[in-house]
Amino acid sequence: MTSMSVTDELLANAERYAATFDKGDLPLPPAKRVAVLACMDARLNPYGILGLTEGDAHVIRNAGGVVTADELRSLAISQRLLGTVEIILIHHTDCGMLTFTDDGFKADIEREVGIKPPWSAEAFPDLDADVRQSIRRILDDPFIPTKTSVRGFVYDVQTGKLREIL
Amino acid sequence: MTSMSVTDELLANAERYAATFDKGDLPLPPAKRVAVLACMDARLNPYGILGLTEGDAHVIRNAGGVVTADELRSLAISQRLLGTVEIILIHHTDCGMLTFTDDGFKADIEREVGIKPPWSAEAFPDLDADVRQSIRRILDDPFIPTKTSVRGFVYDVQTGKLREIL
Repeated sequence: MTSMSVTDELLANAERYAATFDKGDLPLPPAKRVAVLACMDARLNPYGILGLTEGDAHVIRNAGGVVTADELRSLAISQRLLGTVEIILIHHTDCGMLTFTDDGFKADIEREVGIKPPWSAEAFPDLDADVRQSIRRILDDPFIPTKTSVRGFVYDVQTGKLREIL
Repeated sequence: MTSMSVTDELLANAERYAATFDKGDLPLPPAKRVAVLACMDARLNPYGILGLTEGDAHVIRNAGGVVTADELRSLAISQRLLGTVEIILIHHTDCGMLTFTDDGFKADIEREVGIKPPWSAEAFPDLDADVRQSIRRILDDPFIPTKTSVRGFVYDVQTGKLREIL
């Protein structure tokens, strides 16, 4: 008996997805002209929450749903080359980023590996404040052309509800 | 008659999602101990393709599904703080990143905005080679502890199939 990795299990799912696939003629630009930036958290499913399906929206994700240089790059490409005009940011309750500090995380890594990571870990102590911080980083970026709809939310992993941060 | 933005439409979907939500007791660490890094492309739905549901896996996404400092940050957090041990990379056919060059894109922006973006746009001319490049960047990173299963794929947006890059 060979042991199957989780990746192998997921690849079996992928074969099933392809077997009934009928969306082969979708265009490259997102139909809804929206880019979503959300935390990578396993419980936060942007497709389920926002009712998105294949072809609808760009989905950008990372630890925290924060805005760093790479998200500004992705958003610039999304708007300039592929026509999106609205941005939706989603953080969530019970986020891992609330459980540590940049200094502590990087000191732990340095102790183990002998090298201190050259990046900011982007941990944050306050969800609402970090959503506002993310919005501000986008509004302040000179390379994203359309900023008329940049809205931020906190998703509650216990109730499934989105709450807008104003 | 008031005009509704697409964001408002998606928020109406979010209310429907919350109304039947029954997954409020999922733990923070991903059940399948997998992190997926995929392109932000609208046609590439990692939940559909891999058969993932809420609670299963971290999902990290950006323009191209490339590995930059922010993806290394997210993967380090995913493994070190939240216990994932396998990594799945997904690029796809008909990717926007195949349609331009870093130099051209940045020159266009500089001409319009007067500032040249300080980031690499991460455009690539060859899908398979960029999947291998992304795998190598992960294998070379000193802060990601577990690299026994780092596998890369190209998703075909016309057939719905995944092809592994070896």
